[in-house]
Amino acid sequence: MSNPGTLDGVLAPILTPFTNTLTPHVPLFVALARHLMGQGLGLAPFGTTSEGNSLAVAEKVELLDALAKAGLDMGRIMPGTGCCALPDSVELSLRAVKLGCGGVLMLPPFYYKNPSEDGLFASFAEVIERVGDARLRVFLYHFPQQSQIPISHALIERLLAAYPATVVGIKDSSGDLANMESMCGAFPGFKVFAGTERLILPVMRAGGTGCISANANIHGPAMLELWRRWREPGAEALQTKLEGFRAIMEGLPLIAALKALTARRTGDYGWRRVRPPLVALPPEAEIELVERLEKAGIAI
Amino acid sequence: MSNPGTLDGVLAPILTPFTNTLTPHVPLFVALARHLMGQGLGLAPFGTTSEGNSLAVAEKVELLDALAKAGLDMGRIMPGTGCCALPDSVELSLRAVKLGCGGVLMLPPFYYKNPSEDGLFASFAEVIERVGDARLRVFLYHFPQQSQIPISHALIERLLAAYPATVVGIKDSSGDLANMESMCGAFPGFKVFAGTERLILPVMRAGGTGCISANANIHGPAMLELWRRWREPGAEALQTKLEGFRAIMEGLPLIAALKALTARRTGDYGWRRVRPPLVALPPEAEIELVERLEKAGIAI
Repeated sequence: MSNPGTLDGVLAPILTPFTNTLTPHVPLFVALARHLMGQGLGLAPFGTTSEGNSLAVAEKVELLDALAKAGLDMGRIMPGTGCCALPDSVELSLRAVKLGCGGVLMLPPFYYKNPSEDGLFASFAEVIERVGDARLRVFLYHFPQQSQIPISHALIERLLAAYPATVVGIKDSSGDLANMESMCGAFPGFKVFAGTERLILPVMRAGGTGCISANANIHGPAMLELWRRWREPGAEALQTKLEGFRAIMEGLPLIAALKALTARRTGDYGWRRVRPPLVALPPEAEIELVERLEKAGIAI
Repeated sequence: MSNPGTLDGVLAPILTPFTNTLTPHVPLFVALARHLMGQGLGLAPFGTTSEGNSLAVAEKVELLDALAKAGLDMGRIMPGTGCCALPDSVELSLRAVKLGCGGVLMLPPFYYKNPSEDGLFASFAEVIERVGDARLRVFLYHFPQQSQIPISHALIERLLAAYPATVVGIKDSSGDLANMESMCGAFPGFKVFAGTERLILPVMRAGGTGCISANANIHGPAMLELWRRWREPGAEALQTKLEGFRAIMEGLPLIAALKALTARRTGDYGWRRVRPPLVALPPEAEIELVERLEKAGIAI
């Protein structure tokens, strides 16, 4: 079972809604957070799916404060706090700790390409030292296709040696199962979240902790069911069943498509808005998507 | 000649000094700005060389305010204002306009890879519309190797059609001379700055405006001399002469190496500091660099 106050199971990288002037729509955000957590999911706001890097630090603070004010279980929330600029990462991580977040998801600084291992180690170490709070729990964010900055096993090893109580896990969005399995084997107790529901079963079998996948914004309960029952005989079938939704979403601009479906589900048109450089899903693509889901018998 | 209040000639992408707590060292920054502008250079703060993306918005505002307060010719200053988050780009661009900067250098949002042309157009358009000031002058920042987000000719064409008085030029750091020449040909009046001193002569011959190169932090006067005399018979020799310094720097981590040389030149140890993910130049590499420059007869 997914436990109160604990970062395990399935976390939804919650979408960020915008008003018609493209500012974050706080009430809609809180409403989606309640909906997702009501389904038993944890939350991972301000990652890639949340358009986290398209938000200013003050906007992320406002949204995170709103989740706390709404009385949600902050121990089940893992905000993204890794920015390009050190003071930004420190400010967000401090706020997350203050609000009782169960952990933070930390991208490496992603502007300078091919950073040295020393430079990456220093990036994480400086944030941890400056936050300077024993309650901080850092999950590294490995997403080489998007950030262009991989998190190597050698780097994890150094961070674990230096900050064993603070650096506690990773979200691996590479899609590379072998990498996840080998981290589960190499670093006992290190919490590995698969960045795609495609790998829930093999990652749990390898000793992983759970899954953080964009599609959880719409299709979370099915993922959670597999996560709860992964040891049972029907697990393979549940994993296969997840492919239906995933395959339909795969060719689409994912964030825009998930927002379009959220607009449909909630009846709130504004959910379709994205911040540039993303663009909203064209109406004809939305209609086709809905038809494909209906044909496959998948409710949103 | 390089003209007061005008963005032409050679602009130095000024290095950002840090205190021993890694906060920006404002007096050292202003001192370097005075030094470089005293050599006849313009300034392009907060680009790649300035570790601009490693600075928080408030830090960039503080540094830019300090340049204005120091009474420098703001018309010769082109701060980098393009961030991943729309409100950050707007805030910095507004500040630059308010302080009388001759232009701003705008990276596209660089987290999301493979953005559509519509999405990139919207990114720049939203900033321009929100700043909403006829004094704004935008130079696009094309640096595909670092940002991973190229600025295509089709995008430039759309921006010029929509904002002919605002989108006025580009810094091309791709190193691809053919791209610079073709922009000079395709977009009359569009100001093309080469991102490397290696191409000053061919870019000026193609109708370009000047050069913005990291090495101008140390070696600016030699670049400026070529820019001033590019039509004269000795220009080829001046271009070749620039290669001496450039070739010595080429294999090194450039920002750290330029900071080490600035530390030597000024006698201020603190100049060696960089923010992670960059790392300072190891002492042995600094010694070797200085020896190579001495051997080549290049003063710093």
